[in-house]
Amino acid sequence: MNKTGIPNALSILSENRQGVLRDVAFVMARHGANILTTQQSVISSGKQTDLSTLYFEFEDIVDTDSLIHELSEISEVHSVERHQPFSEIYGKRVIILGGGAQVAQVALGAVNEADRHNIRGERISVDTIPLVGEDELAAAAEAVSRLPRASVLVLAGSIMGGKVTESVIKIKKLGIPVICLSMVGSVPDHADLVVTDPIQAGVFAVMHVSSKAVFNIYRVQGRKF
Amino acid sequence: MNKTGIPNALSILSENRQGVLRDVAFVMARHGANILTTQQSVISSGKQTDLSTLYFEFEDIVDTDSLIHELSEISEVHSVERHQPFSEIYGKRVIILGGGAQVAQVALGAVNEADRHNIRGERISVDTIPLVGEDELAAAAEAVSRLPRASVLVLAGSIMGGKVTESVIKIKKLGIPVICLSMVGSVPDHADLVVTDPIQAGVFAVMHVSSKAVFNIYRVQGRKF
Repeated sequence: MNKTGIPNALSILSENRQGVLRDVAFVMARHGANILTTQQSVISSGKQTDLSTLYFEFEDIVDTDSLIHELSEISEVHSVERHQPFSEIYGKRVIILGGGAQVAQVALGAVNEADRHNIRGERISVDTIPLVGEDELAAAAEAVSRLPRASVLVLAGSIMGGKVTESVIKIKKLGIPVICLSMVGSVPDHADLVVTDPIQAGVFAVMHVSSKAVFNIYRVQGRKF
Repeated sequence: MNKTGIPNALSILSENRQGVLRDVAFVMARHGANILTTQQSVISSGKQTDLSTLYFEFEDIVDTDSLIHELSEISEVHSVERHQPFSEIYGKRVIILGGGAQVAQVALGAVNEADRHNIRGERISVDTIPLVGEDELAAAAEAVSRLPRASVLVLAGSIMGGKVTESVIKIKKLGIPVICLSMVGSVPDHADLVVTDPIQAGVFAVMHVSSKAVFNIYRVQGRKF
């Protein structure tokens, strides 16, 4: 971290070739950079199609300029750029999963509430995937634990149980609180909070994530609104 | 890729220690795994607080079981799990940026439209960050080029120009199409599509991303609806 506790961030444009991540990680480890976040993907459209972008966030090191210089010298690397970290740009993420009319209403409530928070300087994102089907929802809920900056999950629908409930139990253990709508099935028995109004469910999720609000899901855990 | 063109995905739970990524990348390169996507983050709550999760997607290799075995033997590694890749779970991402009443209406349109597509088997996510301010919006728009699976950007607001327009020009070159609402400022002069109704702007964004819809922004480029 630098003095403000904010990590450094770099992006590297390179050839999509086996071993590039190894070479980059080798240089970063030699500079003592403890990597907190990485993202890598292959560009699929535009002028740089088929090139690879690597993005890193890492704790402060003595000499970032020399790190950048040395990364630039790896033969597959085209360019190295400094950036603000994602936590400063997009902030914490509210994740909304579910299908039908209710999922868009949860998103509406969450986006409107996040707008009120972000205008005061916070950074809260609202990420929604409309989905139906027990297997599909269970996989998506379980994968929330692997999403960077995911801070709370809202399950929006009228019937969820079985494997979805197993995923809820699993991600709660990993520290992700779960809000669900009032619905049929076993999910409401395992969620941290059950909310009848979809708009309010979205609002509660943002209030929980906010660093300025006084609301915390764990203080009303197990209640139904 | 495996036979279906879908990459393999692994997650690794490990100590948060300098050099772990290097050691993991070294083993993966030795197995000939061309890494397409990586994500790493430090767990901040729950039972596994302070441990690091590494997530990889990579093209098919001869012997994934032996790769998993060798990764498990790295001393800092606690566990290695196989997963579905994110592209199969959350799919392509529609990104919505902007502030005020309109941003939630764009999200509403996009989420409802994505629900209709996903119920037929597609995977389209709608990710929204409500933001105001030229610098804040310009940074968030520019950073869309570094978001994995980001496929289209919608700018929702009533006035945008200056640095935001510079970011629009930059990400268009990187292959991300841009839709904006009808608004004051120079952004509408540079967007691929200008849409007056925020709900329709969200719908168009999803239609463009869809692999089943017949709509393509580039076929109506420069038009205003």
